[in-house]
Amino acid sequence: MNYCPSCGDRVALRVPPGDDRERHVCVACGDIHYHNPKIIVGCLPTEGQRILLCKRAIEPRYGLWTLPAGFMENGETTADGAARETWEEAAAVATGLSLYRIFDVPHISQVYIFYRCGIEAGRFGVGPESLETQLFTADELPWDALAFPVVRELLLEFLDDRKRDNYPVRHSVISRGYDRR
Amino acid sequence: MNYCPSCGDRVALRVPPGDDRERHVCVACGDIHYHNPKIIVGCLPTEGQRILLCKRAIEPRYGLWTLPAGFMENGETTADGAARETWEEAAAVATGLSLYRIFDVPHISQVYIFYRCGIEAGRFGVGPESLETQLFTADELPWDALAFPVVRELLLEFLDDRKRDNYPVRHSVISRGYDRR
Repeated sequence: MNYCPSCGDRVALRVPPGDDRERHVCVACGDIHYHNPKIIVGCLPTEGQRILLCKRAIEPRYGLWTLPAGFMENGETTADGAARETWEEAAAVATGLSLYRIFDVPHISQVYIFYRCGIEAGRFGVGPESLETQLFTADELPWDALAFPVVRELLLEFLDDRKRDNYPVRHSVISRGYDRR
Repeated sequence: MNYCPSCGDRVALRVPPGDDRERHVCVACGDIHYHNPKIIVGCLPTEGQRILLCKRAIEPRYGLWTLPAGFMENGETTADGAARETWEEAAAVATGLSLYRIFDVPHISQVYIFYRCGIEAGRFGVGPESLETQLFTADELPWDALAFPVVRELLLEFLDDRKRDNYPVRHSVISRGYDRR
């Protein structure tokens, strides 16, 4: 950030009165511009015993499989956003959304919030950010072609929880270096 | 937002290619500036059977009681942020944080994330945004002087969960008009 979004003058990094960290403060109008973590919302959609994954048509991890997820938008709930991403990436209407998994990712200032859901009438398609979409049984899951380690972790937990038919809301922190596991 | 934070030229509301909603797009450099929901993190701190509340020294709801909470900062986890707010508002070191309560508040594009926690050595004080802080038993809680309905809801749920010694992660949506209940 170089310029004030309000008045267009220069911003400088300063610690505002009563604050304890540097913020982008406008040298002209004094507006303080805060930068805060972003929320990624997504779904783990299932149809019977099968899980719906999307093959990415965009970078990063083009051509690898992932769960439908993306940036939460203003004015929606986390569940709205997770359902919207499921529609956009897999042309599936998410049903019965249930909060399932939260990942803190502090080194990139993000929080991931995932829901379990069903798929209306078992219908799905291929959204513009996907090359293809597919339902997988546990045995068919493409473990060697998953886009992100959090997807692997979420799928393993889900398969485990499903054996017990008990799905507690889980929460953990993803540290820098987690991607290299 | 009137000006581009990157180059200082004017921004206009436009739907970028491949997008489906208006964004602030710079007329000169083309940068797209997204605005996303913000996360409020907080704690429900307890010491034995008592709950720590803070009397607000700031608007809104000056002079009313609340739980320590505030905007999550970049680079921290939700638990880091909840502990930081507990330190800033009640000079208490939060211990044993456990994810407890998520509120979606779509009409103001916020998500609240609360943790249960203890207080190191039972010590607490008064931070700059509080007039006073106090431990309350269930019978002493200031029901008629709580700052926000979500605080009331969270306290009622907690007292209920405590009877069963079972604290599932709860999640609900706060709609416009909830404040008038």
